[in-house]
Amino acid sequence: MSSTLITRIGTLVTNDPALGDGSPLGLIEDAALVLDGGSVVWAGRAADAPDADERHDAGGRAVIPGFVDSHSHLVFAGDRTAEFNARMSGRAYSAGGIRTTVAATRAASDEELEANLTRYLDEALRQGTTTFETKSGYGLTVADEARALRIAARHTEEVTYLGAHIVSPDYADDPAAYVALVTGEMLDACAPHARWVDVFCEKGAFDGDQARAILTAGTARGLVPRVHANQLTYGPGVQLAVELEAASADHCTHLTQADVDALASGNTVATLLPGAEFSTRAEWPDARRLLDAGVTVALSTDCNPGSSFTSSVPFCIALAVRDMGMTPDEAVWSATAGGAAALRRTDIGRLAPGARADLVVLDAPSHVHLAYRPGVPLVREVWRRGARAV
Amino acid sequence: MSSTLITRIGTLVTNDPALGDGSPLGLIEDAALVLDGGSVVWAGRAADAPDADERHDAGGRAVIPGFVDSHSHLVFAGDRTAEFNARMSGRAYSAGGIRTTVAATRAASDEELEANLTRYLDEALRQGTTTFETKSGYGLTVADEARALRIAARHTEEVTYLGAHIVSPDYADDPAAYVALVTGEMLDACAPHARWVDVFCEKGAFDGDQARAILTAGTARGLVPRVHANQLTYGPGVQLAVELEAASADHCTHLTQADVDALASGNTVATLLPGAEFSTRAEWPDARRLLDAGVTVALSTDCNPGSSFTSSVPFCIALAVRDMGMTPDEAVWSATAGGAAALRRTDIGRLAPGARADLVVLDAPSHVHLAYRPGVPLVREVWRRGARAV
Ligand SMILES: [Zn+2]
Ligand SMILES: [Zn+2]
Repeated sequence: MSSTLITRIGTLVTNDPALGDGSPLGLIEDAALVLDGGSVVWAGRAADAPDADERHDAGGRAVIPGFVDSHSHLVFAGDRTAEFNARMSGRAYSAGGIRTTVAATRAASDEELEANLTRYLDEALRQGTTTFETKSGYGLTVADEARALRIAARHTEEVTYLGAHIVSPDYADDPAAYVALVTGEMLDACAPHARWVDVFCEKGAFDGDQARAILTAGTARGLVPRVHANQLTYGPGVQLAVELEAASADHCTHLTQADVDALASGNTVATLLPGAEFSTRAEWPDARRLLDAGVTVALSTDCNPGSSFTSSVPFCIALAVRDMGMTPDEAVWSATAGGAAALRRTDIGRLAPGARADLVVLDAPSHVHLAYRPGVPLVREVWRRGARAV
Repeated sequence: MSSTLITRIGTLVTNDPALGDGSPLGLIEDAALVLDGGSVVWAGRAADAPDADERHDAGGRAVIPGFVDSHSHLVFAGDRTAEFNARMSGRAYSAGGIRTTVAATRAASDEELEANLTRYLDEALRQGTTTFETKSGYGLTVADEARALRIAARHTEEVTYLGAHIVSPDYADDPAAYVALVTGEMLDACAPHARWVDVFCEKGAFDGDQARAILTAGTARGLVPRVHANQLTYGPGVQLAVELEAASADHCTHLTQADVDALASGNTVATLLPGAEFSTRAEWPDARRLLDAGVTVALSTDCNPGSSFTSSVPFCIALAVRDMGMTPDEAVWSATAGGAAALRRTDIGRLAPGARADLVVLDAPSHVHLAYRPGVPLVREVWRRGARAV
């Protein structure tokens, strides 16, 4: 593999304070990068750049690390357009939310599920996402959950077992039996295909005790916990996540001071998912409060057909700045380095020597334009492992 | 020119109730269109479609009329990234808002201004905008205003004279003299290059009497009025617009019941610009109230470097649905047929026989996805006057 010099970068976001201007983003103006063997081998001022085999002119545009979307639900089939349309038009709609997607997913062939997944992953890649996590959770049977994870694992290393998305409709009368399945036979079938175990800890889904049982069982099988926590109401999810050293507590929309304190003192990232609040007209999570308390914040899409059908990290950045009190710098950091932290990865989310050469060239001179130009598709080029992907 | 059959359209938005399902969008499922000579010559069910010279397969995707963006400010130079970043980061910023853009625009060469304009127009076209209005207003001298309009007129028929954007800084001590210039020598120089006359009727810009003088002078020179009205505060702009039979009152964020009643009884479209409220963290205009009163509503970007630097009509649709009480159907209508009404055009904004063949093929089976999938670039193909443009 030959080395590549990307030069004439307007603003380079390295996310390495030691490299750049000393800010968390480690900004370098008039910058260059050298990529070799799929990694960054040099980052600095263009004037100081070493030679390389190939040369690529960024034309004064900004370069940022590829987005790390640490929370999505992309193994599904079916459509919920009619439900969305009815909700947004103030009309009643009788059909069944997530159960619609579960039924369609169970009925789909492997090929249909994989075609759907790759379609959304391509869409995300074109929008600058170079690493994505995705989950099971629309199968809710041993076979369907394992199948979702097998399919996901063909496309990403970041696969999450979410048998505990909701209590399966098949167990509506006996949730304890469903928890036993999720922590028993289903876990046995799923653990080999996943890195993470997740649970939707919320009224109407799984309570604190159930969530603890599910996460603990997953941990015993070598999975690392992450938790859907405190989205719709206050609850035990966030503090449980911190206690169990989950990599991430996701949503964090309703937080007590004790929740914030727990996050600030623990090793759990708070992953905020503004696409969900946007699409359900819900209250925004307060990113400012978390950041001021010293919590590490990630920003992700939650892409799913029910409550947040966006694959656009730039859109989430614009919302985070407009409505969640993040500065443009913080939002860009959270969507790159923050996502990496939520996946406990140090090889991505930054553009410093040794990091993976996953990067985005923006059709703009600075990363601030991701918030300044909301809705505009600013992703011009995407490079993954040192090669042009878009 | 040969005829083209676009077939296998999932959902076709015709905006002609007589053609489709009887709704304002005139929806046809499993549809086809025939284009010839730059116009639509046939629209209906695919099964009934006549033959044509060429055949294009839409693959089950939705087809909608090209967006009509009836309000933008694209003849400018310079950058206000630092100002935006400071505002969104809660930092003070001393430099001067619109005056920054005025100074940069005056200093730019014709070539720079035209390159900037075409760059944003191309960006808008890629996002589905097939007709755009744009304005002067960053020159504020006779020569600079006329220059802006000449440059704009090379790229669109919908050119608006907005010498009355703000009182020129050169006339800060004598606003009456600036109004005399705008209604006199500047109007003489500008009228030949424009179709519309506009004024920013707002506290700190032009009051009701000044706005009336400016619009009346423009009308006497054959221009048709449109008004920036009631954006930041309540004021006389909307009722003045209706009284003078302006084509559109734009912004309409702060409306009294008398304002709504005036719009409902007059011939003036209310053009809502949610990009401005998004980018300035302002209160949303209440589209629902206007629609329920029977007002014709258009939806546009207000694309400009100060208060709404988005060229994305799909983004505005998603905001209008989420935050302004519009249904997805209404928002799509307002961004197409509504924009056409705000420009008093009947040849665009619809896809019925006789209309211009300006259309968008979405990467989605229905137009509802523009709201259901916020931030996702869903524009797959753009056709203008019957030919593929994107
Ligand atoms: Zn989720
Ligand atoms: Zn405007």
